[in-house]
Amino acid sequence: MYEEYLEFAKEIALYAGKVMMEFYNDTMSLSYKEDKTVVTIVDKKINSYLIEKIKQKYPKHSVNGEEESYNNSKEYVWVCDPLDGTGMYVNHIPVFVFSLALVYNGNPIVGVVYNANENKMYSAIKGQGAYCNDIKISVNNKNFGDLGYRTNVEIFNNDIIDDVSLIKELKSNSKISSIGSVARSCMAIATGDFSCDIFPGTNHGNCDIAASSLIVTEAGGRVTNLYGQDQRYDEDIKGAIISNGISHNEVLEKVRKYYIKK
Amino acid sequence: MYEEYLEFAKEIALYAGKVMMEFYNDTMSLSYKEDKTVVTIVDKKINSYLIEKIKQKYPKHSVNGEEESYNNSKEYVWVCDPLDGTGMYVNHIPVFVFSLALVYNGNPIVGVVYNANENKMYSAIKGQGAYCNDIKISVNNKNFGDLGYRTNVEIFNNDIIDDVSLIKELKSNSKISSIGSVARSCMAIATGDFSCDIFPGTNHGNCDIAASSLIVTEAGGRVTNLYGQDQRYDEDIKGAIISNGISHNEVLEKVRKYYIKK
Repeated sequence: MYEEYLEFAKEIALYAGKVMMEFYNDTMSLSYKEDKTVVTIVDKKINSYLIEKIKQKYPKHSVNGEEESYNNSKEYVWVCDPLDGTGMYVNHIPVFVFSLALVYNGNPIVGVVYNANENKMYSAIKGQGAYCNDIKISVNNKNFGDLGYRTNVEIFNNDIIDDVSLIKELKSNSKISSIGSVARSCMAIATGDFSCDIFPGTNHGNCDIAASSLIVTEAGGRVTNLYGQDQRYDEDIKGAIISNGISHNEVLEKVRKYYIKK
Repeated sequence: MYEEYLEFAKEIALYAGKVMMEFYNDTMSLSYKEDKTVVTIVDKKINSYLIEKIKQKYPKHSVNGEEESYNNSKEYVWVCDPLDGTGMYVNHIPVFVFSLALVYNGNPIVGVVYNANENKMYSAIKGQGAYCNDIKISVNNKNFGDLGYRTNVEIFNNDIIDDVSLIKELKSNSKISSIGSVARSCMAIATGDFSCDIFPGTNHGNCDIAASSLIVTEAGGRVTNLYGQDQRYDEDIKGAIISNGISHNEVLEKVRKYYIKK
């Protein structure tokens, strides 16, 4: 049954990739500047397509999308970010992906992240490992401070952590980047390239990382909220730390120092 | 004469692109982990090729490369970063470019930045505008704080500015990213996508941005060091602010607050 869900998720991903790349290449025309509109079109087109397909195939399931949702049941919920990395997408930097997870009672059981620009389909079924284009992938085993340890932090105003002061501490012992797509960064963790991502997202933050949380976990990594706890992925989240596992507790200790007091 | 230099620079760029993509695709094999070595090979191979070609064609010119240099004359100096964005390159994120400028008495007169992954050749000759694949490009006209104003800051330990505290101030009124390649970010400025880049590089920092400084200027933008001054590009620099021009002074005022006192 899970295999069927995965095949379904991959079909949606391929459709999403087609839509993304069509508009991405169109707007490469250097005079094009109405970027905000493009993202809205792409996002909505993919999100509506997903809902339409769910209605046809799994009408009792729900959809929790960044743009639009369907049904209220919290048993089977398809959690989707149609286009993660919109800021890069509109600026013609090829760091953006489609993300879709099937979440059962709060826990992701199937996840797909599709990097259409490089034709890489990342996927996982709970308990069965993580794959990129059907090749098994796994996290690296770097400790925090090791050569090549890279932490990605998406920087934006949020009410959980002082992300910038945290970076100030981290940058002495880790390469730092902020590549503009948390799901793309998570896939770099799942393949052993990056070592950690710190994500301060809350509202709809589950849409960004529901699939990634399963894929990284199945690749041997660890995912918690910014307080070190497990969390549901069919509702708003309290940020996330996504790591190779081995360095998770050390990073969490550093994050703790920068909680915003309320 | 400048046209001839530009053609020469483009030939080197195409060679560099070929080397980069060959190794990039090879290391996509997901078990490959000896990344540090790959960068060294790619960097050195491109840098040596440039020196060999300069010796043949312009033996009185100098080469100032990130890996290797040739001659001491400061009249005509070819300033090269064989692979800008090494951190992304080794982590299989397609944000990396080749950069080469011909600097005459400290001023760039010809510049080429090549994004081999997307086959985009950015170029400029002093006084003749900036181009991407022979289409004229220009900066945007966003003011700091406008919707879509994006500042890219490469975050690393440096002795000029407290980059991270600066970001803390900027992030309320600007999207922030740190995409891992200052030259790629500069090309996003030259095409009107990004609006500003703040670069704290000093040692060999000229190699990273000599070509970009000309291309952005020719696209209508402005480039100074972090103190708001012009600078030579055939020797170490004092960081750089690369902007769309219109917002340059406002950004400079913000940067001033975060100079590291010596």
